[in-house]
Amino acid sequence: MSTLAMTVAYDGAPFCGFARQPGQLTVQGELERALGTLFAREVPTVCAGRTDAGVHALGQVVSFELEEGELEGRSLAKLQRSLNALTHDGISVRSLRVVPDGFSARFDAKWREYRYRLVVGQEPPVFLAPYAWWLRCDTLDVDAMREAAACLIGEHDFKSFCLAVSAVDKSTCRNVMAVDIFEEEQLGERCLVVRVVGNAFLHSMVRTIVGSLVDVGCGRREPAWMQEVLDACDRRAAGQCAPAQGLTFWRVEY
Amino acid sequence: MSTLAMTVAYDGAPFCGFARQPGQLTVQGELERALGTLFAREVPTVCAGRTDAGVHALGQVVSFELEEGELEGRSLAKLQRSLNALTHDGISVRSLRVVPDGFSARFDAKWREYRYRLVVGQEPPVFLAPYAWWLRCDTLDVDAMREAAACLIGEHDFKSFCLAVSAVDKSTCRNVMAVDIFEEEQLGERCLVVRVVGNAFLHSMVRTIVGSLVDVGCGRREPAWMQEVLDACDRRAAGQCAPAQGLTFWRVEY
Repeated sequence: MSTLAMTVAYDGAPFCGFARQPGQLTVQGELERALGTLFAREVPTVCAGRTDAGVHALGQVVSFELEEGELEGRSLAKLQRSLNALTHDGISVRSLRVVPDGFSARFDAKWREYRYRLVVGQEPPVFLAPYAWWLRCDTLDVDAMREAAACLIGEHDFKSFCLAVSAVDKSTCRNVMAVDIFEEEQLGERCLVVRVVGNAFLHSMVRTIVGSLVDVGCGRREPAWMQEVLDACDRRAAGQCAPAQGLTFWRVEY
Repeated sequence: MSTLAMTVAYDGAPFCGFARQPGQLTVQGELERALGTLFAREVPTVCAGRTDAGVHALGQVVSFELEEGELEGRSLAKLQRSLNALTHDGISVRSLRVVPDGFSARFDAKWREYRYRLVVGQEPPVFLAPYAWWLRCDTLDVDAMREAAACLIGEHDFKSFCLAVSAVDKSTCRNVMAVDIFEEEQLGERCLVVRVVGNAFLHSMVRTIVGSLVDVGCGRREPAWMQEVLDACDRRAAGQCAPAQGLTFWRVEY
């Protein structure tokens, strides 16, 4: 038996998210369909972070297991090319490698990094339109956003930033290591990036953090409000969920 | 009478090029339709560079004239917002200003800059797919491309790089000031940029230069071949025309 891991980038727009769903175009569905074609059996996969519909990924990691002999006579480079050829054009398998037996892209992850792009201004973005949230205002108070973000660092119950808890007794505690906000030029257009690093994330947690930070940046809320949101442990206390197309699952560290 | 100039960015994909054409979606058609709505008459526009179908622009400049009194009681900021609201989502009017009487976006331009993005590798690009030409090879010889590009600098007859000469007696001489080739990271993906600066350009000249440089970079031609192409003054001597989606009209200087 061999365990393999691939790093995968995808444009979120055409997909109903990562997780396979019958009758829907999903990233996992595409990867497993391709693996099924190549190995003539069902090959289940595990990913580092299940992204929602419309969310992009640059460095998603997906692991799967092959049976004795299935890798024989195949080069990893050729297998990677076949996966790229057999999957939707919005998916790119960037690398493929053999990893220690029993490796899980999900459970062995130490931390995950997401990046969210905002475009601020009266003029609509053009090239960044599919990859950013356009805020039609003159400016955002980035210092206020940084002040608000500070209380999120560390181990906390992030229930206020969680859209849906999958099981009643599941913990909503997570460890957030960094929330950085910086300007960047991409494709010739200016954007503001919110970079969030944490051990793991709840459903829609990054997008709810960004939506709440935007409320602060626009002056609708004071920076100190963020601590109240965190303490409330109630989704209704937080700001809006930022739109999916601004978010990219950037990388994962093992 | 007032002369105005706007800087316009657009995604080339949805448009049949810049120049207006009856019954087609074009950038000029959209801008003139919006101006027609705002001023209740035909307002002809002049651009710095007529881009082909699928070619993008970051800093296209478009000039037009308003009659006595048409600007009265209107702020430039509001006019700009109206233009953004009335045109296709793929167009963004970035700035609008009053310029000296008789200014022409076309005839007053001193030099123009185009950038062409290449993605090299076995893995398809994802985020850059709409904005680059994917070359499915392991590497390009950038030094050989730079050597080949050197002979293009200066005033030359670029007839070999011209798809169609619009009038029989029109000159095909142009002054190319720079052809730079450099690596860049955009949206997390690596690309190679060919930056071409010149006083003006012939039809499909940048794309034919890039297509020929790629022939050199892939090893299909020697660097010295570029001088032969230039000397031939015959379109059949040059390489392929690189696809439209990799090209962006970057800026123009007056």
